[in-house]
Amino acid sequence: MSLPDSNLPAFESLAIVGVGLLGGSVALAAKQRGLARRVVGVGRDATRLEQAQKAGLIDDFTTDLGRAAVQMDFLIVCTPVNSIVPGVLEAAGACRPGTLITDVGSTKAHLCREIGNGLPCGVTFVGSHPLAGSEKQGWEHALADLFEGRVCVVTPTESASRDAVDRLTAFWQAVGMTVLEMSPEAHDCALAQSSHVPHVVASALAQTLAVENRSLAATGFADTTRIAAGDPNVWVPILMENRESVLARLDEFSSQIAVFREALASADADELRRLLERGKTIREQLQVRRVAE
Amino acid sequence: MSLPDSNLPAFESLAIVGVGLLGGSVALAAKQRGLARRVVGVGRDATRLEQAQKAGLIDDFTTDLGRAAVQMDFLIVCTPVNSIVPGVLEAAGACRPGTLITDVGSTKAHLCREIGNGLPCGVTFVGSHPLAGSEKQGWEHALADLFEGRVCVVTPTESASRDAVDRLTAFWQAVGMTVLEMSPEAHDCALAQSSHVPHVVASALAQTLAVENRSLAATGFADTTRIAAGDPNVWVPILMENRESVLARLDEFSSQIAVFREALASADADELRRLLERGKTIREQLQVRRVAE
Repeated sequence: MSLPDSNLPAFESLAIVGVGLLGGSVALAAKQRGLARRVVGVGRDATRLEQAQKAGLIDDFTTDLGRAAVQMDFLIVCTPVNSIVPGVLEAAGACRPGTLITDVGSTKAHLCREIGNGLPCGVTFVGSHPLAGSEKQGWEHALADLFEGRVCVVTPTESASRDAVDRLTAFWQAVGMTVLEMSPEAHDCALAQSSHVPHVVASALAQTLAVENRSLAATGFADTTRIAAGDPNVWVPILMENRESVLARLDEFSSQIAVFREALASADADELRRLLERGKTIREQLQVRRVAE
Repeated sequence: MSLPDSNLPAFESLAIVGVGLLGGSVALAAKQRGLARRVVGVGRDATRLEQAQKAGLIDDFTTDLGRAAVQMDFLIVCTPVNSIVPGVLEAAGACRPGTLITDVGSTKAHLCREIGNGLPCGVTFVGSHPLAGSEKQGWEHALADLFEGRVCVVTPTESASRDAVDRLTAFWQAVGMTVLEMSPEAHDCALAQSSHVPHVVASALAQTLAVENRSLAATGFADTTRIAAGDPNVWVPILMENRESVLARLDEFSSQIAVFREALASADADELRRLLERGKTIREQLQVRRVAE
């Protein structure tokens, strides 16, 4: 592996805790861009990790998080939302001072609070949420360019030094992301609107489709409900951890449905047109980069 | 143009009234499969029709619907929903006895009723709704295989002869579609669920996204709201004509949202998991063919 470019954020050693689609993609992206001299995979299943090593995603692997943590200067915890806190705290307990830890979880407030309360002196945790992913699971689907052109939110709390936040920001930028800095709470409130409520809506919509009408569902229905096929093991923890924001945003959505309902009930074609025009304008202004499937 | 295969439904002359994306695709599909000896385009804009003729979609064109109708034995009205009734009735008034007329509108009950009341003796109208389309507009985006592998609903009323329904069914089958026969009312009730409510939901969801959160919308949000970019000129008439069914189905959807809300409000992770699993199962069972974009 080539040495990091002097302009790139260089880490001696990077541990990816949880080598799935996201973790595997971070590993690939970091290796390809020379962002770490050594990338180590940490997980529970040695056979899977060995396969990931053979596939060239990681340089080395271990099932012992504590043993890995002591040797690393940067750890990225890529496990599901509900196992991030114990993972980070276990790693933090074993780290050398100066080590930087982040995660890639889709909720931030709860876990940043829990981690902040348990973090030993000298170890820095700053939360990250790279807005990239796929319904696919497993490092076999990992892509070195998964993060390219996407947004990453970093959510520093008061205890994080500016230097640590800057190093983390530079890392995500180096894999191609635009980095936004937000408080963990502001992140969760925003993501409830842009991601968590849409998940609930897609799932609810899928469930309203009667069996006898399935043959009448075309691409419109399929796209509107696509994310309903997401893994409940991923989504239950996200919705549970962010349930207050999700409830508030869900009520906003229901109010908007009620506005449509009123226009229909009163046969107000002008109001209906105004609403549809507004939805169209907002949708057309969205610029979302897609990874080639 | 080759003569129709003896196994295919052959028409001497087919008029496409409204040569846009759908009409143009019907024309292409019919010509490519030899389903009519002559395909004539009817519309308001002679320049556009001449271009479509030069592009090989139609053999001939006219802006005079009455003049075209008298020469045809099959007419397909491909105009927006709110101009289908006057189009069909104008054509029907000029047709020879034995002529078959259909449409491709997304709602059926209202228009089948209106047309049924005004149809002259000897002319048969049977409604069709081919479930195929695109956000794109204009015959430039027409595809000969747009209908392949898709469902078409035909909605005969009592006045239609079995022979006419069979000929219409054979036509849609010949362009690659699976044909379902339903009453106009049953069609509208089913489509409210599989298409019209999803459109309202997508538009409402797009409108809940605050400007400051747009950069946090990723592919999930983009897919869930894709159809919100549809043309209000198409959708206002659909929703207005089918508003009773849409209201009823929208209320079913809102009840499903309320079930999710209750699970979240009571922090019931088991119920949330059950709901998400159910949505995932239904979504995964959907088989929707996509046309290559």
